[in-house]
Amino acid sequence: MEQRYGGLEAGGTKMVCAVVDDKGQWIDRLTIPTKRPTETMSQIVEFFKRNDITSLGIGSFGPLDLKEGSPTYGSLASTPKEGWEGYPLLQAFAELHVPIKITTDVNGAALAEATKGAAKGLDSCMYITVGTGIGAGAVVNGTVLDGLTHPEMGHIPVQRHPEDIYEGKCPYHGGCVEGMAAGPAIQDRWGKAGIELAADQNVWELEAYYLAQAIAAYTFVLSPKRIVIGGGVMKQEQLYPLIRASLVKQLNNYVDIGNPNEYIVAPGLGDNAGIEGAILLAKQAVQT
Amino acid sequence: MEQRYGGLEAGGTKMVCAVVDDKGQWIDRLTIPTKRPTETMSQIVEFFKRNDITSLGIGSFGPLDLKEGSPTYGSLASTPKEGWEGYPLLQAFAELHVPIKITTDVNGAALAEATKGAAKGLDSCMYITVGTGIGAGAVVNGTVLDGLTHPEMGHIPVQRHPEDIYEGKCPYHGGCVEGMAAGPAIQDRWGKAGIELAADQNVWELEAYYLAQAIAAYTFVLSPKRIVIGGGVMKQEQLYPLIRASLVKQLNNYVDIGNPNEYIVAPGLGDNAGIEGAILLAKQAVQT
Repeated sequence: MEQRYGGLEAGGTKMVCAVVDDKGQWIDRLTIPTKRPTETMSQIVEFFKRNDITSLGIGSFGPLDLKEGSPTYGSLASTPKEGWEGYPLLQAFAELHVPIKITTDVNGAALAEATKGAAKGLDSCMYITVGTGIGAGAVVNGTVLDGLTHPEMGHIPVQRHPEDIYEGKCPYHGGCVEGMAAGPAIQDRWGKAGIELAADQNVWELEAYYLAQAIAAYTFVLSPKRIVIGGGVMKQEQLYPLIRASLVKQLNNYVDIGNPNEYIVAPGLGDNAGIEGAILLAKQAVQT
Repeated sequence: MEQRYGGLEAGGTKMVCAVVDDKGQWIDRLTIPTKRPTETMSQIVEFFKRNDITSLGIGSFGPLDLKEGSPTYGSLASTPKEGWEGYPLLQAFAELHVPIKITTDVNGAALAEATKGAAKGLDSCMYITVGTGIGAGAVVNGTVLDGLTHPEMGHIPVQRHPEDIYEGKCPYHGGCVEGMAAGPAIQDRWGKAGIELAADQNVWELEAYYLAQAIAAYTFVLSPKRIVIGGGVMKQEQLYPLIRASLVKQLNNYVDIGNPNEYIVAPGLGDNAGIEGAILLAKQAVQT
């Protein structure tokens, strides 16, 4: 029987849906903005129904309840995203009656980059997205990193830059890396969106300082073989060399990361890492 | 043939050596202070020779070169520990002509705690030691966490406590968690060793603040199912409840760690986690 794999990359800004057949052909695709669940979800469920999918993979923004056996498995947990706190995302697709596999958006993207993207062939990598929020997923020993719940890497504490007085935007932790360096923090600190600040060197040096500090922490904790960084803020491609330079400075030769140009890279799958990961999860859902 | 497994827990303060037979009986044991390699290593090599070991497991302080295929595999890398920078630890045992497996001391301890200690039965845990330095190892999906090199979790950046003016003791990163909260930082900040400060509540609340901040970061990055904390500083057992309370406060309900008393625990193997891990590595060395 022909398989029709449905993938949903559920992001804080937009929802990307796709359907792929078992020859890898893309059959249909839908991208809509993430509004309240009532506005957004009926369109998505309708899209997958119309395409008669045989399984579904979901990579979603978080935090998600992914504890085995939890009565709210697959639901959003506490989130500042309006209307989504506690939303039963997995259950919303129950009417499709197909196998579903759900993980975080960034775990899905890390899986995709390690399977067919910029970290192809490595048994260890990280995928970081810098956009509305900051999140990261990881593949360790060839397997997506999971544990008590799922990583929430955007919320690690960072040290304030000596010349920065911005207090941080995270409603939970103030000056965690998401609070200091995600898109909304750039907007809030400088009074303009990142895209309007493209020519301002100070903006991107400070941005790189915080991202490199988080990446130094990830390096100290996880020691990944490669780090893939994507997301809306990284469209400012001048950030890549600035991050590499700041990382080398902050590691201060304590850890040898090899060639920084090979350690910190752009997504090999471009903006498709998230949705490709969701499709890979749909394939896994059929296998299990 | 009877196996005689040799284990070496190579620490910054002391070297613990043991020999165990294949029935699990402890045959011999030696603990000596860690001085310069010339003073220390001949005694250790002699100990293992005398005991006629059939394989050796080493859990060592770091940073170590553990890159596959490296010409300096098994050597110490840059370290502030006098005389040990670049020391070829693995090669020092070449004259024994037995299979040897080497990893970090804390990876060894994490393996031991997950195999037979305080995290027995869990496929994911961390082991943190707080002593001369701060280090941590992890087991993820049942396997010791490894990657580009090995984790160096003690060097993650932490935010300074608003009332703390101490600049940090790490020669590489100043105020990383090791620089703010390892034994030498306690001595340097307060002018006395931790053991003399046992009754001073301020000392341990500040200590718990920094350790909990690091543990929050590890939780956000790794999401371990349990965290085992040992090492000399943790002999101040009042730290355990203080760390749990500070961690809950710092996570601010963003991640559900369950019961903090089950999430943050003392080593199940007491001071033996490191040497038990080394013995487990010696067993693995024979299997591979």
